[in-house]
Amino acid sequence: MRSRVGIFNLVWSASLLLFSCSESPGPGTSVFVVEREGGKIAVVDYVDRKLETEFSITGNLRHASMVFDPAMRYAYLISRDGILSKIDVYRRREVDSLKVSENSIAIAISQNGGVIAAANYKPGGITFIDTESFKIIQKISAEVNLNGEEIVSRVTGLVDAPGNLFVCSLMDADEIWVIGPSPEGSGEKKFIVQRKIKTSEKNPFDALITSDGRYYMAGHFKQQTSSLVDLWSLSDQARSITFRRDAKKDRIPVKMPHMEGWAVADGKILIPVTSDMRLYAISTVDFSSSGHTELIGEPVYAVVRPDRREVWVTFSGDKNDGKIQIVDPVAMKSLKVLDVGKRIYHLVFTPRGDRAIVSSNESNEVVILDAVSHEITGRVPVASPSGIFGIWRAFQIGL
Amino acid sequence: MRSRVGIFNLVWSASLLLFSCSESPGPGTSVFVVEREGGKIAVVDYVDRKLETEFSITGNLRHASMVFDPAMRYAYLISRDGILSKIDVYRRREVDSLKVSENSIAIAISQNGGVIAAANYKPGGITFIDTESFKIIQKISAEVNLNGEEIVSRVTGLVDAPGNLFVCSLMDADEIWVIGPSPEGSGEKKFIVQRKIKTSEKNPFDALITSDGRYYMAGHFKQQTSSLVDLWSLSDQARSITFRRDAKKDRIPVKMPHMEGWAVADGKILIPVTSDMRLYAISTVDFSSSGHTELIGEPVYAVVRPDRREVWVTFSGDKNDGKIQIVDPVAMKSLKVLDVGKRIYHLVFTPRGDRAIVSSNESNEVVILDAVSHEITGRVPVASPSGIFGIWRAFQIGL
Repeated sequence: MRSRVGIFNLVWSASLLLFSCSESPGPGTSVFVVEREGGKIAVVDYVDRKLETEFSITGNLRHASMVFDPAMRYAYLISRDGILSKIDVYRRREVDSLKVSENSIAIAISQNGGVIAAANYKPGGITFIDTESFKIIQKISAEVNLNGEEIVSRVTGLVDAPGNLFVCSLMDADEIWVIGPSPEGSGEKKFIVQRKIKTSEKNPFDALITSDGRYYMAGHFKQQTSSLVDLWSLSDQARSITFRRDAKKDRIPVKMPHMEGWAVADGKILIPVTSDMRLYAISTVDFSSSGHTELIGEPVYAVVRPDRREVWVTFSGDKNDGKIQIVDPVAMKSLKVLDVGKRIYHLVFTPRGDRAIVSSNESNEVVILDAVSHEITGRVPVASPSGIFGIWRAFQIGL
Repeated sequence: MRSRVGIFNLVWSASLLLFSCSESPGPGTSVFVVEREGGKIAVVDYVDRKLETEFSITGNLRHASMVFDPAMRYAYLISRDGILSKIDVYRRREVDSLKVSENSIAIAISQNGGVIAAANYKPGGITFIDTESFKIIQKISAEVNLNGEEIVSRVTGLVDAPGNLFVCSLMDADEIWVIGPSPEGSGEKKFIVQRKIKTSEKNPFDALITSDGRYYMAGHFKQQTSSLVDLWSLSDQARSITFRRDAKKDRIPVKMPHMEGWAVADGKILIPVTSDMRLYAISTVDFSSSGHTELIGEPVYAVVRPDRREVWVTFSGDKNDGKIQIVDPVAMKSLKVLDVGKRIYHLVFTPRGDRAIVSSNESNEVVILDAVSHEITGRVPVASPSGIFGIWRAFQIGL
């Protein structure tokens, strides 16, 4: 009996695999789109410009992010209610889920794909999950002494870094932590806080790391400056970076935009600042101010096209939330404004930069554009789309 | 009858797919290794550290290179005798082949994956192949007027560039060509030579393009300088770049090393120069000289670890051809020499930089190293291994 069941399973699994492969040109041109309201993931092929399949996720998808293992076999998604989902990339379904906290904001996967770290708001800290067993292997509480008082901070701005490290920001305090595996021969294999770095201002809240994993930059609430950490140096103090040179004096940035949306092009870091309705530039060489471009509204994301000749900016606010403003990062000049949809929640480019993929949340569609001609080449119906995640994330540092 | 055959084929194809997927952790950690003498491709998983499968290729594999389509469904390989192979990435076999010239040196795939260009020595020119039909759609002969005489040049240094462009060097003349699709509305869809750029010296012979597709740099036979083209400028003259500052006066570089092996790290382009046994550095900002590091022998490849903190150099010559010298590109100092195998033909890092994969040709093995600890973690028997190609190439500009 056993072998007959075995053969049945073999054929069944094989058919599922064939199903996924025959439906799409290949896995490289599929993206996973979070359906914010419906608790589902839609798989969209950007070449065929059609919905391939949808599948359900256990957690609440109102703020979800996703990473892929280096083998591109499984993806992992964290939902706001602290549920980590394991997703089979080829069979396109959730295969397991695990509660890692009451409230999580982000995940990262280690360089070797062995461990997922989750950044938690409640209880504040980091949870480590082994990818092979899909079990929690460790928790680190974000305990800090703040003005003589012991507190547990919310953790944010979590990214992976080379050497199987993770870097994160303690939102209710003023520290950036570098976390890594304990040294060889030190007994039990676990993660330890290797370094604690003071931020330049209080309350770091979102962060990015450069694509080589060298610079970590955290934004601060209601501040004109950001904290910059050079992970190659051993300093325990972040450098304060001023990016709002010549800012409108009466405006204070109440909230920094998502740093995931900062762009690097032509030796500049380009930072969209909501209150000023400007895209500011600072030099990647000495971090000095390199001018700004006026924007049509309050920016959310600024995303660089992979050839670095254009930066595409999305907006909040009823008037502009369906528009994309294209800026030339060399001349720091606005080139064009596109009318793409309604309430744009996310924008990504394909890795070689030929196409842009946009979540138009209110019009319930994923919009595909030719990134060179700027023409809309497809509109794929997807219910309340938000985050868009391509399988190429399997090969990127610092997600 | 037809439906029964259909079902048989379905199950058969499905089993093959399952076979590939169940044998390996996933396609992301598999690399395709050219078996130079045996006319085969070996598929090696660098996590499991074992040979997954081998399959035969029609052409002669003594100098073969490979690209992947953006969907990661098919790979394409050109062999020295001008035979282009279409390889099914999942079923792991050659599914078609096509004679494109008498003698080819390289291929590139357009940004959108629609067209393969092959650079040919004989007859000198470029052949364009449609990836969907796998048919030749066009040939451009490399005809140039050299000192009043019409010649047909060999073509080399072929790479793709953003905008579905291809860039190549005319080896028997002094020109770099930028080739792209004819303008919309100009009738028949074909490729045209959009720009001809004069090199700074005669006989460009190998080239690289930076990862954003902006700078194209070609080496020259027996010259102290290279030709640099900024593809964002409209100049029809390449800039001459001197990289052998303080070179040993009695030595002329008879042959430039493979430019594919030039490394970019810490604001420097690192160029291994055989005759001088040195790794030279030039600035990526102004292309001025930035010093050098002495090497233990005659270098072949210099490859940067993805976190850009180390450059690994391989060598020719019986004494050193199994060694790898590790250089710190910031301090421009030698860190370590590893003894890895015998006659190293190729070296690549995994995309997030955790491992290095090395073809040790004479010892008939693919060697896998932990890229951080520098320890050898596996030796996989593969007959006469040479070029190593990871599926992540599907997502890279300028191959």
